[in-house]
Amino acid sequence: MIKTLEEAQVAVVGLGLMGGSLAGALRGKCRSVVGVARRAETVTAALARGLIDRGTTNLAEGVGAADVVVLATPVRVILRQLDEIGPLLPPGCLLLDLGSTKARIVEAMERLPAHVQPLGGHPMCGKETSGVEAADPNLYRGRTFILTPLARTSEAALALGRSLAGAVGATPLVLEAARQDALVATLSHLPYLLACALVATADTLTSPDPAAWEIVAGGFRDTSRVAGSDVTMMLDILMTNRAHVLKAVTTCQAHLAYLARLLEDGDEESLRTSLEAIRAERVRMFP
Amino acid sequence: MIKTLEEAQVAVVGLGLMGGSLAGALRGKCRSVVGVARRAETVTAALARGLIDRGTTNLAEGVGAADVVVLATPVRVILRQLDEIGPLLPPGCLLLDLGSTKARIVEAMERLPAHVQPLGGHPMCGKETSGVEAADPNLYRGRTFILTPLARTSEAALALGRSLAGAVGATPLVLEAARQDALVATLSHLPYLLACALVATADTLTSPDPAAWEIVAGGFRDTSRVAGSDVTMMLDILMTNRAHVLKAVTTCQAHLAYLARLLEDGDEESLRTSLEAIRAERVRMFP
Repeated sequence: MIKTLEEAQVAVVGLGLMGGSLAGALRGKCRSVVGVARRAETVTAALARGLIDRGTTNLAEGVGAADVVVLATPVRVILRQLDEIGPLLPPGCLLLDLGSTKARIVEAMERLPAHVQPLGGHPMCGKETSGVEAADPNLYRGRTFILTPLARTSEAALALGRSLAGAVGATPLVLEAARQDALVATLSHLPYLLACALVATADTLTSPDPAAWEIVAGGFRDTSRVAGSDVTMMLDILMTNRAHVLKAVTTCQAHLAYLARLLEDGDEESLRTSLEAIRAERVRMFP
Repeated sequence: MIKTLEEAQVAVVGLGLMGGSLAGALRGKCRSVVGVARRAETVTAALARGLIDRGTTNLAEGVGAADVVVLATPVRVILRQLDEIGPLLPPGCLLLDLGSTKARIVEAMERLPAHVQPLGGHPMCGKETSGVEAADPNLYRGRTFILTPLARTSEAALALGRSLAGAVGATPLVLEAARQDALVATLSHLPYLLACALVATADTLTSPDPAAWEIVAGGFRDTSRVAGSDVTMMLDILMTNRAHVLKAVTTCQAHLAYLARLLEDGDEESLRTSLEAIRAERVRMFP
């Protein structure tokens, strides 16, 4: 296994928002960045945008000489790729993924051949736009990059993963898979479902009124933003993190029902106490 | 009644985020801007920040010579002020408010003495910060400014209200009170309660884990932003728009429960159909 990121040939599989942005951020910081995409037009676009040094639609060719391979596809595509990619990888190759849920991915990584060094990854960033056109090498800057090593992952492989996170401007954070899945269910997947429920409510109650389109305010825009996320990506995330997401939804429904009941009862004192505590918590989260 | 905003002495009652920002945006676009606040320190701060031409803590003195008076206090403070302010206002004075709910305010405006020209107002802007320190003369720029005239409001008074909205960079939109209250319940007050329920859920499920603080991502930040809003302001809004807000919450709970049930049942096809329709609606709202 190579020692430093600078010496590494990195192959990024999947050149959408996450993969394209990562490739662009890594270019110039390692020996070369090879992009692998299913469609030739995606490779062409990534080359034209300067995100990769070279590209291919052939997975075996793209990863055959790589020191580091990054799977940047939807979670269930990653699961399928993990079942096939092992024999294509050179000995000592670091295999990292960017999937938002980790338990099922780490489980699939356990089955990889022994010559591969697997490492789960989940950078905490994204946009409500998708595709190579939305890729932005600054996407990872200042964000947390969760790393989920397996028992079989070597110290050197984890160190290389940390370097990669740092090279794109992110801060690595090592977390065990179940703990990361529980946390992101509340901090990332629940906000998506709330944003979706909000947009669906507007569609039911206000969209028939043309005035609604003129008065949609900043609060609605922000609260609903993530409802514009790529559906295939989100569906894979939800389906591979069901129990944690459902628990987060149930908890949130209870909090919302409690606030609504206080409002219905006109119990202003309790409502104020709750809203003040929530406001203080929000300020604590984002000082 | 004076004809143009340029000739008007404008008194802004309440120099928090909304009033302070409005005063600052109007300064130089009318004869003078007088600021009225309960606390002397607020007046001093507004003067120091250049938001007003002069200021006072005495309501009668502040509004006694005004051509236009703008009430920029929480909704239930506006309701109390409407019961007292009539005799203090000069004949023909335009009395506008910035409260987020309009039915109760317009009802109170009906009781004003005949020499006053009342006009309901609700600019669709805000921030999660509050107070004169957060005031920003650009706050209204590009936003919709809802105006709710009464049967007794003259054409000239409505025209002056439109000029004022335009002078601060907003686009006026005339709406009847019940219709505006129903629309903002879904488009503004529901997002607030969802943001609060989200923060409360994080407080319950993830805040005990120190890692949560490092991985709170952009999606959570945006979806929860309005939970930082001023509680006194929001409580007044919720309490004066209860029926509409509760209807919006109930509808949203049903949508959320439906999405959760599809996830629980593993009914991917229906879940994808719903999420795709929601995504399309979000894109339609914010192209």
